Amino acid sequence: MPGSFGYVETRRVVLFTEDDPLVLSSGATLAPVEVAYETYGTPAPDGSNAVFVCHALTGDAHAAGHHGDPARTGWWDTLIGPGKPIDSERLFVICPNLLGGCRGTTGPSSPDRTTGRPYGLRFPHFSVSDLVAVHRRLLAHLGIRRLYGAVGGSLGGMQVLQWALDRPGEIEHAVLVCASSRLTAQNIALSAVARASILGDEHFCGGDYYDSGRNPDVGLSVARMLAHITYVSERGLELKFGRGRLREAPTFGVDFQVESYLEHQGRSFLERFDANSYLYLSRAMDYFDPFADEEGAVERLRDSGTRFLVVSFDSDWRFPTAHSAEIARVLERAGCTVQLEEVSSPWGHDSFLLEVPRYHELVAGFLGAAVAVR
Amino acid sequence: MPGSFGYVETRRVVLFTEDDPLVLSSGATLAPVEVAYETYGTPAPDGSNAVFVCHALTGDAHAAGHHGDPARTGWWDTLIGPGKPIDSERLFVICPNLLGGCRGTTGPSSPDRTTGRPYGLRFPHFSVSDLVAVHRRLLAHLGIRRLYGAVGGSLGGMQVLQWALDRPGEIEHAVLVCASSRLTAQNIALSAVARASILGDEHFCGGDYYDSGRNPDVGLSVARMLAHITYVSERGLELKFGRGRLREAPTFGVDFQVESYLEHQGRSFLERFDANSYLYLSRAMDYFDPFADEEGAVERLRDSGTRFLVVSFDSDWRFPTAHSAEIARVLERAGCTVQLEEVSSPWGHDSFLLEVPRYHELVAGFLGAAVAVR
Repeated sequence: MPGSFGYVETRRVVLFTEDDPLVLSSGATLAPVEVAYETYGTPAPDGSNAVFVCHALTGDAHAAGHHGDPARTGWWDTLIGPGKPIDSERLFVICPNLLGGCRGTTGPSSPDRTTGRPYGLRFPHFSVSDLVAVHRRLLAHLGIRRLYGAVGGSLGGMQVLQWALDRPGEIEHAVLVCASSRLTAQNIALSAVARASILGDEHFCGGDYYDSGRNPDVGLSVARMLAHITYVSERGLELKFGRGRLREAPTFGVDFQVESYLEHQGRSFLERFDANSYLYLSRAMDYFDPFADEEGAVERLRDSGTRFLVVSFDSDWRFPTAHSAEIARVLERAGCTVQLEEVSSPWGHDSFLLEVPRYHELVAGFLGAAVAVR
Repeated sequence: MPGSFGYVETRRVVLFTEDDPLVLSSGATLAPVEVAYETYGTPAPDGSNAVFVCHALTGDAHAAGHHGDPARTGWWDTLIGPGKPIDSERLFVICPNLLGGCRGTTGPSSPDRTTGRPYGLRFPHFSVSDLVAVHRRLLAHLGIRRLYGAVGGSLGGMQVLQWALDRPGEIEHAVLVCASSRLTAQNIALSAVARASILGDEHFCGGDYYDSGRNPDVGLSVARMLAHITYVSERGLELKFGRGRLREAPTFGVDFQVESYLEHQGRSFLERFDANSYLYLSRAMDYFDPFADEEGAVERLRDSGTRFLVVSFDSDWRFPTAHSAEIARVLERAGCTVQLEEVSSPWGHDSFLLEVPRYHELVAGFLGAAVAVR
């Protein structure tokens, strides 16, 4: 039986200082940059067993184990732990909170040392490459030079892809789950509506809401409810809720079960996420387009030696299989070893967070764990 | 060459008075009820050429012709007019604004005679059956007892279906374009997010914003932008905009072409639509479920003599072909003559408003016009 990693603590480290600032791809600089991260398992003496986990839009460093309550585990606890597909008995797993986030790593809610106040919208825009640059600094801080594996779902997979391009050969096994190399116009449109909702909230105050005692809660919860619809499949919602009702006669409250579920998703999100972080990270996704120069990408990847596992889910309508297939197409052009797999699951994009057996077998097999055959 | 109907005026008529109020399916009463409507063509002496047009969620009575500027025609001017599929040289076409609307027919922005102030959220909830009851009263006012045809797209098609059920035999030819007999959990979820955005707007004021000088514009425009994404197809957005950009470097403004388009959709909607009307009409759609008692529906439709044309578009993801097929399935169980057609078009749900040749041919053929072979 695979077990839980048990109690873990989130650590923090200052990776960039005013003397040694983070130079963003835009040319802007940022300092200090502190990063929150967790690790699971033990590094091999030669650092050869490191697996880097990149989180998605609203994730955090707490991927596995628990912080005191064994019932409340990290967001990828089903995937990471002793005997699990990312086996912490064998692998040394690292998961940081993203630059621009709000869960311990420097982001728009962090104090700007030049003013003493939170950055708000004065935080610089950053790219997925910049996220990777911070990851690499964390890796160096941990004394690791090369990754046995890098794993991510959605925006997490985009970071893994960018890393493979920015530093060819640094990753031995790259796992991209329901990722994309390029948001479609519809993807961008949905992000734009979420941002319009946040930016238009009466309490947004141009991003300087931190000291006002009020947050743009309506805007952020609407953004989250909308995004959540794209994370689950039409069929999944139908299976769970159908047209189940909580009332007989119409109101503008919560009449249908699916409305109750959505409202809960919106409300609970407010406790853990910052509206400005949402704006910055979603915008970085819009601009992500690492194959815009496809020939350049193919050249960079050639002879990198990185092996890829690219997984999609058949009910994912945020980043359908076509997105994964497009990634695989370019990787194959570069001569990379690519395993492209579409997994059947009714749960849409969110499947990457769930215990879908075939998906877990694929990750375990690719990373060389023996879970699948136990 | 089919021509335009030319100059038209919207007329208004009080159909229900305090002595003769509209009794809603909830049992609530409403009076007065005034209805704005337009007509095109000339009624036959025996009233045998009447075609009733039911508009969708945000339509109005101005379906064809123009109000003075020949360049600005009604929303279905491509379909209705001399020599067009709904041929005003042969047919007498009637199109009213819906109950609960905001374009001339009594709705939440109308004055409540008991208070002298706009109803706001004191307006009663109503069903699609109630919309049909008002349509039927307008028809009686015009001296017409039976319809040669009833035609509607989306919510308009839902009204046609309800009419066929509520008054079996009253419609000879029923045309349902990208309609549904039952919103899915995902459909309801998307509506719920749109409503949450309106209800949470700082200027919504519990629906009593009419005298405040401010409207819930942010909430309503976000609702419209979101809805608009569901009206167009992913492929349509990709063909029109792709990842085309207006800026080089990221901002939280309008960076991508698709964002500019969406913002325009949201902003221009504010000039023509009322937030409370949006709430009421979208809620009526959520509750629409005329086949909940399928056996009862089959019994009512049996021997009605109504012939049905049910059209869907292959790129419509708001009400995909499965919704139309489900309608046809029940109609066929009742022994009705049903022509179910899926038309290919890249433009999604909005195709019903556009000049898609095969679709126009189907409507013309079904209503007996000779357009298709000209």
